[in-house]
Amino acid sequence: MTGIDDLPVRDELRGKSPYGAPQLDVPVRLNTNENPYPLPEPLVERIAERVREAARNLNRYPDRDAVELRTELAKYLTRTGGHRVDVENVWAANGSNEVIQQLLQTFGGPGRTAIGFEPSYSMHALIARGTGTAWISGPRSEDFTIDRAAAERAIAESRPDVVFITTPNNPTGNAVPRETVLALYEAAQAARPSMVVVDEAYIEFSHGDSLLPLIEGRPNLVVSRTMSKAFGAAGLRLGYLAAHPAVVDAVQLVRLPYHLSAVAQATALAALEHTDTLLGYVEQLKAERDRLVAELRAIGYEVTESDANFVQFGRFDGEGGSHEAWQKILDRGVLVRDNGVPGWLRVSAGTPAENDAFLDAVRELKKEQSA
Amino acid sequence: MTGIDDLPVRDELRGKSPYGAPQLDVPVRLNTNENPYPLPEPLVERIAERVREAARNLNRYPDRDAVELRTELAKYLTRTGGHRVDVENVWAANGSNEVIQQLLQTFGGPGRTAIGFEPSYSMHALIARGTGTAWISGPRSEDFTIDRAAAERAIAESRPDVVFITTPNNPTGNAVPRETVLALYEAAQAARPSMVVVDEAYIEFSHGDSLLPLIEGRPNLVVSRTMSKAFGAAGLRLGYLAAHPAVVDAVQLVRLPYHLSAVAQATALAALEHTDTLLGYVEQLKAERDRLVAELRAIGYEVTESDANFVQFGRFDGEGGSHEAWQKILDRGVLVRDNGVPGWLRVSAGTPAENDAFLDAVRELKKEQSA
Repeated sequence: MTGIDDLPVRDELRGKSPYGAPQLDVPVRLNTNENPYPLPEPLVERIAERVREAARNLNRYPDRDAVELRTELAKYLTRTGGHRVDVENVWAANGSNEVIQQLLQTFGGPGRTAIGFEPSYSMHALIARGTGTAWISGPRSEDFTIDRAAAERAIAESRPDVVFITTPNNPTGNAVPRETVLALYEAAQAARPSMVVVDEAYIEFSHGDSLLPLIEGRPNLVVSRTMSKAFGAAGLRLGYLAAHPAVVDAVQLVRLPYHLSAVAQATALAALEHTDTLLGYVEQLKAERDRLVAELRAIGYEVTESDANFVQFGRFDGEGGSHEAWQKILDRGVLVRDNGVPGWLRVSAGTPAENDAFLDAVRELKKEQSA
Repeated sequence: MTGIDDLPVRDELRGKSPYGAPQLDVPVRLNTNENPYPLPEPLVERIAERVREAARNLNRYPDRDAVELRTELAKYLTRTGGHRVDVENVWAANGSNEVIQQLLQTFGGPGRTAIGFEPSYSMHALIARGTGTAWISGPRSEDFTIDRAAAERAIAESRPDVVFITTPNNPTGNAVPRETVLALYEAAQAARPSMVVVDEAYIEFSHGDSLLPLIEGRPNLVVSRTMSKAFGAAGLRLGYLAAHPAVVDAVQLVRLPYHLSAVAQATALAALEHTDTLLGYVEQLKAERDRLVAELRAIGYEVTESDANFVQFGRFDGEGGSHEAWQKILDRGVLVRDNGVPGWLRVSAGTPAENDAFLDAVRELKKEQSA
């Protein structure tokens, strides 16, 4: 039987498996940091309405530059990000993954390197590989914060072309202080002209502020965002970035023409009309996240500070300890995520009932392990 | 003012401009091979209905493997392509551009080469550049057919990793005979194990049959398709491929996870429910295309044989002759395409009224030039 390795695939792909969390059918799924709240019915109707309108013109190519959508995203960022941005500061694509792919095609690629401070969002490294960008795994402290001096040293030594800073970080949950980001930006520029990508996929859940204002006067700094989490629209695949207009011009050299469908643009525009309602859900999720942190600690788990809609908890000692705990929680009907960080697991903040089910499961687990 | 070249973009992007046809607001737009028929109202309603359903679950990631959609695409191909294919033979992405990008990331990339026979679909070369694949411009005869011996020689000499054969070819319109495709496949395999991508974006408009049956027993052959043209859904950005299941497995190593949104999947599924109606429009367009060919010849133009929903016509002699003709046709309110093929222009088959407007414009142009 012909398999992948019988095809003339690139050598570095041989023996690899596709990325992706297991998609298991269990009662409580808290493994992919989805927003547990379905879109409100008026928004569902509005989406149907706007898509119906778009469908009447579907025989035509979509607006290649997504001007209306980028204008509305700019308004949202201006309103919530503490800094005025306009349409020419904003770019959108099919998920922040595609935004990152476009950035790496523009500023990374063959003969260039990118660094991230791991554990972090694993797609950064995978998209680097997919674009031929060499990947450097930068350091993170034992407590999952970024040690500024160590990170500066890593940048000075490796002189990367692209630096990823994920804040709040995934899968650990903690935010990176503004001063650290500024210091790493300076270190990166000192090493060579390089792009610094601040991945703020989870910023709406943070106790602190967006780093969006940092794009002012820093053309080599990009803030990337998504509608998957705060907007409860993981199924929409709508990522975007804010940066100097030159960055927006530059990614258009590599973007596939008409990359963003008319239905995606229409759906995103509908969701943006309902921003206030959706940000209300964010507040509920922040409260639930804080409850998860407090209760996990009360049960006796260690918890990494979280500014996201998920919580990293542990520790599960011994070889394979975290995977064993993952399985035991799954046996109780709750799917969490084993991100491969030894000793730790990640749970997404769900509805109060889902979180209760999760807390019951880990309470039992703790009893069992203490017995 | 900071511009693209002040950023640390890749050297090969310096001084480049984004790809894309001019988007001009004129009465008759026949420049991007769009289907001129809007989707029928019952299909528009069905799209709204299916998207409403999908929107109720939009907080969750979409089906990462798009199984239902690929199943329905397989049924469509089986019904119309003369060969039985199943879900595991089919892969889908955001436009055939993304399909091609994924193929080049898997089988091309840094240190590898791809060949196409030019003039042909210019995105093949651009996506090659975007994925770090070296591009080889293969030969085409004066009459825009592929000279089999010359093409075989080019393959033997350059030993490409990926071979593109566009049939019907864009922008010239002519189909590539089955025997030529088979000969080039053999030549490519003799040179080195390599992938042959048969781009059938316009196949539904052809007088001849799809080459889909050729995938049987040829794991290194891929047929790529789109819903942009025959399905009248350029705004949807839905491309797909049919190939050996190992190819479908392989592209999943480079695809961005959850690349295809739930709204795109829902919209495409709705359109596939209305296949018969949409293929009815295709018949009308084929008749109009044949009329364009006949009338252009009657007026005195040279026309390349067309199996697509567009027609290449000329010749416009002299340096810049075709661009000058393009402008004069535009001055009469009709936008056609100057694809940079010296002496030739391309016109998409529109509605009968649009085609009449175009024919009036080129009739006048002919008179003026003969005067």
